[in-house]
Amino acid sequence: MAKRFQHVAIVGKHQALGIRPILEEIAEFVTRQGLDVSLQQETALNTGMTNYDALSNEQLGAQCDLAIVVGGDGTMLGFAREMARFGVPLVGINQGRLGFITDISMERFREALPPILAGDYEMEHRNMLEGEVWRDERSIFEGLALNDVVVSRGATASMVELRIDVGDEFVANMRADGVIVASPTGSTAYSLSAGGPILHPSIAGWLLVPIASHTLSNRPIVLPDTGDVTLEIVAGRDASVNFDMQSLASLLHGDRISVRRSAHKVCFLHPKGWSYYATLRRKLRWYEGVS
Amino acid sequence: MAKRFQHVAIVGKHQALGIRPILEEIAEFVTRQGLDVSLQQETALNTGMTNYDALSNEQLGAQCDLAIVVGGDGTMLGFAREMARFGVPLVGINQGRLGFITDISMERFREALPPILAGDYEMEHRNMLEGEVWRDERSIFEGLALNDVVVSRGATASMVELRIDVGDEFVANMRADGVIVASPTGSTAYSLSAGGPILHPSIAGWLLVPIASHTLSNRPIVLPDTGDVTLEIVAGRDASVNFDMQSLASLLHGDRISVRRSAHKVCFLHPKGWSYYATLRRKLRWYEGVS
Amino acid sequence: MAKRFQHVAIVGKHQALGIRPILEEIAEFVTRQGLDVSLQQETALNTGMTNYDALSNEQLGAQCDLAIVVGGDGTMLGFAREMARFGVPLVGINQGRLGFITDISMERFREALPPILAGDYEMEHRNMLEGEVWRDERSIFEGLALNDVVVSRGATASMVELRIDVGDEFVANMRADGVIVASPTGSTAYSLSAGGPILHPSIAGWLLVPIASHTLSNRPIVLPDTGDVTLEIVAGRDASVNFDMQSLASLLHGDRISVRRSAHKVCFLHPKGWSYYATLRRKLRWYEGVS
Amino acid sequence: MAKRFQHVAIVGKHQALGIRPILEEIAEFVTRQGLDVSLQQETALNTGMTNYDALSNEQLGAQCDLAIVVGGDGTMLGFAREMARFGVPLVGINQGRLGFITDISMERFREALPPILAGDYEMEHRNMLEGEVWRDERSIFEGLALNDVVVSRGATASMVELRIDVGDEFVANMRADGVIVASPTGSTAYSLSAGGPILHPSIAGWLLVPIASHTLSNRPIVLPDTGDVTLEIVAGRDASVNFDMQSLASLLHGDRISVRRSAHKVCFLHPKGWSYYATLRRKLRWYEGVS
Repeated sequence: MAKRFQHVAIVGKHQALGIRPILEEIAEFVTRQGLDVSLQQETALNTGMTNYDALSNEQLGAQCDLAIVVGGDGTMLGFAREMARFGVPLVGINQGRLGFITDISMERFREALPPILAGDYEMEHRNMLEGEVWRDERSIFEGLALNDVVVSRGATASMVELRIDVGDEFVANMRADGVIVASPTGSTAYSLSAGGPILHPSIAGWLLVPIASHTLSNRPIVLPDTGDVTLEIVAGRDASVNFDMQSLASLLHGDRISVRRSAHKVCFLHPKGWSYYATLRRKLRWYEGVS
Repeated sequence: MAKRFQHVAIVGKHQALGIRPILEEIAEFVTRQGLDVSLQQETALNTGMTNYDALSNEQLGAQCDLAIVVGGDGTMLGFAREMARFGVPLVGINQGRLGFITDISMERFREALPPILAGDYEMEHRNMLEGEVWRDERSIFEGLALNDVVVSRGATASMVELRIDVGDEFVANMRADGVIVASPTGSTAYSLSAGGPILHPSIAGWLLVPIASHTLSNRPIVLPDTGDVTLEIVAGRDASVNFDMQSLASLLHGDRISVRRSAHKVCFLHPKGWSYYATLRRKLRWYEGVS
Repeated sequence: MAKRFQHVAIVGKHQALGIRPILEEIAEFVTRQGLDVSLQQETALNTGMTNYDALSNEQLGAQCDLAIVVGGDGTMLGFAREMARFGVPLVGINQGRLGFITDISMERFREALPPILAGDYEMEHRNMLEGEVWRDERSIFEGLALNDVVVSRGATASMVELRIDVGDEFVANMRADGVIVASPTGSTAYSLSAGGPILHPSIAGWLLVPIASHTLSNRPIVLPDTGDVTLEIVAGRDASVNFDMQSLASLLHGDRISVRRSAHKVCFLHPKGWSYYATLRRKLRWYEGVS
Repeated sequence: MAKRFQHVAIVGKHQALGIRPILEEIAEFVTRQGLDVSLQQETALNTGMTNYDALSNEQLGAQCDLAIVVGGDGTMLGFAREMARFGVPLVGINQGRLGFITDISMERFREALPPILAGDYEMEHRNMLEGEVWRDERSIFEGLALNDVVVSRGATASMVELRIDVGDEFVANMRADGVIVASPTGSTAYSLSAGGPILHPSIAGWLLVPIASHTLSNRPIVLPDTGDVTLEIVAGRDASVNFDMQSLASLLHGDRISVRRSAHKVCFLHPKGWSYYATLRRKLRWYEGVS
């Protein structure tokens, strides 16, 4: 069994209505387990909670050995990106329908948290995508993504054409509504809607999935995550790129988006007995549908 | 540059009409490059060629440091499985339309072979699937596959239901015409027809792809290749299993097919400058189709 | 409002355990509504019920103006094919999970039946496929299908190759595990598993859907139902053809399966307010899944 | 054989470089066949051709009994929409790669045109979509489409949610990048990229195809073309609608796009022996690809 945690940060989806009493309940519960509790500064400001230390993300990364994130997969994704360089492990408590990566319900957190706080948990690491946009040999944008990097056509363009290279090997020219480079974590997000397969989180690869490809044979492909993936804008007006939720519009012909594996990994903790496949079955309803 | 080869085995698709003069031409060409040449015994017997040493696959594995396989992807797959435990590298010369793994044409072998024989080539390794069928705790069949292990419903059954586990984790119950466990090499074979994605050969994973799944949400999934994948027959009459081309019919309820990564890898040599992606583009016509 | 029914036949999935008391309950209920009730002969024989007239399908078609079928979609499909030439309208009562075409549950039949018996219902007609197998200009098999006609490869063959013609126009050669010709009714059955779209029952067309096609561009196509669709076996050992559930194996090269619209239609009655789209939503869970 | 044509209009993709000599060659050729030739006014203005009568589209529709369109599928689509209410039949001559509906090459027009001009041809009619956008019970936009009506999410929105009704029946709520309502003609255009099936031109139905649907079970569906299809914006910022190429942006929640079959049909003429399926095979390369 791993060592017991000592100083826990609590982070909340502060836009959510009625989040404050929930955060207070959790903070109190963790305190009673004998751990130090701090609040993420942004969470404290937005909820008006003042009875716990408020720490900036920097301070939180330096001082806390665990963060409890209260919200859905979106809240977790955003905070996980912020925390990636500090390596603080994350646990998700979900108020609504359980997500792919936030798997403790409000109803069950009192049973689920204590063993985790005591060091008894499943730990898994997720690779992140680190990307840069280049124009005329100058980097004009940088971003980090846990789910995916997506290049899309402009709203008034009929398609975007991208030249894809991996390392110094040419892969293909793709004409489509867009092209997704997804991590295993992102394989159950937008990529799945676009027709991509599911990648187990331990797979060392990225998914390359065109959206509404003009070529019928443009099947999704799993690329090794060791080299740089480069997407160059060849044709199409006003394309844009998204790193999870951060977006850069008005890309020009010749702009190159390069994507590589980040040196940082996200670390998620789950209750003992947690299973990735069980989450898939629940979220995708593998047992149901037509029969 | 790697060391020069010394003793080359030549293997032919001996059922092919008119293969003998082609094999003679290649054998003579290699001899003139100053290398020792032997024939695979089966090839010698079937073509009636007697002017070269005929070696059993065992002898060939022990004595030769390179094998030239003349035929299509099917011939190469069959021989590669036989040679896997010896680690002899393989080069493919294709009489017909170039394949995914046989990429030197008869027209170009005189330019393409000499650099390879001299040690100047691209080398790549491919993982193989090793499988076993268990009935009542007894192993009743063993097989090796470079492409895929496929469990299929019987001809008169409407489906087969399989329980899939990876290691000791339950994945899903799948009701379908069949389920494919494919290696990266097999991702461009049957799996592609069944709707699977493409896996770059360097990906350490298997594809799990249902054929005509009864559940719409049963997307293909890429599983880690570190644990055992087990497929248990839960329902459906007269199911069968195929390891590449070796087949076992009349499976019973409760039979389990377990698949793991073989300790052996296949080693292919390609002409310098060979590109996996170029092969994909050529075979799948990524540039063409609807526009 | 249409005219009130007078003589109702009751048909049961007689292999089902415990079907007899259910059939008795329904028969009694219908009798009390003032209608004449008969049993299908096969149902009477299999359940041992003797207190109602037992009619052969022929007699039933001549004498009854409504048939109540108790069972699932499979039972309904089988009986609907038998009744097609008589034009007797059909109502389905389902003991288990509601089907696509059997939409009154055992729990609700007491409320749902009376308005229908009194002539207040939604009526819809479904086209059927009529097929014939030709060998050397001789017809060797005939069949009727409400769902689909499926030509499949033999269990030990890697594919079947079919030449498809519509009327005297050549459509394509397809190499695949098989090819489905589905009616709109069949579009939510096997065809859906093979990747086909859904056809509203009123569409005057057939779906042509390959199963695991060897060509990536072989998209499903909706053909007009006015001409004959012909599928000729071009290659592949031991192919077979299925008309819904009736099957003919050991097809030879040159055998032709010709499919056309039957002169008969199946007539289903549903409770007032029934909606095809609501059935789709319920069966396919359109509201759910990934979010 | 149908009656011989007398007065032919010539229409050109006037933005194309070097189109003038080509149009002159065709006009001269048709004149020499003894027919009257006029130019579409827009074509005359843009190419500077003055040696033929220039007619507005109105005049052209009233006076000409045939129009020859020189360009690709896009040029033909645009002009066909303009001509729909006049019923003038259209023939396409394609300078580049043959299209789905422009099937006479520049190389072959001297052989292909004379029989058509003399009344010997294949004629086919294509249904068109007529749409209207409603806001607060007021119609704010009208459009006609030969291919498709597409509702798309805004560039910065993650999806659009649409409520779909057919007539007064609720079909489904769809959350996706967008939803396509395509005619059979449009089934080989954008809809095909989004995963839709092919509809033979004679099918009396529309395709409803979501783009990157958030629900895995949202299969394409073929709807009857007899009722109105309504798409209401339920969620998603800044959605837009496209009727072929005419576009309306900044749709608001509650806006409804209603689509119905136009009273007008487009009439295409093809050389005798033309086959829709041959066009499909050529454009989609059904014979090729993986093997």
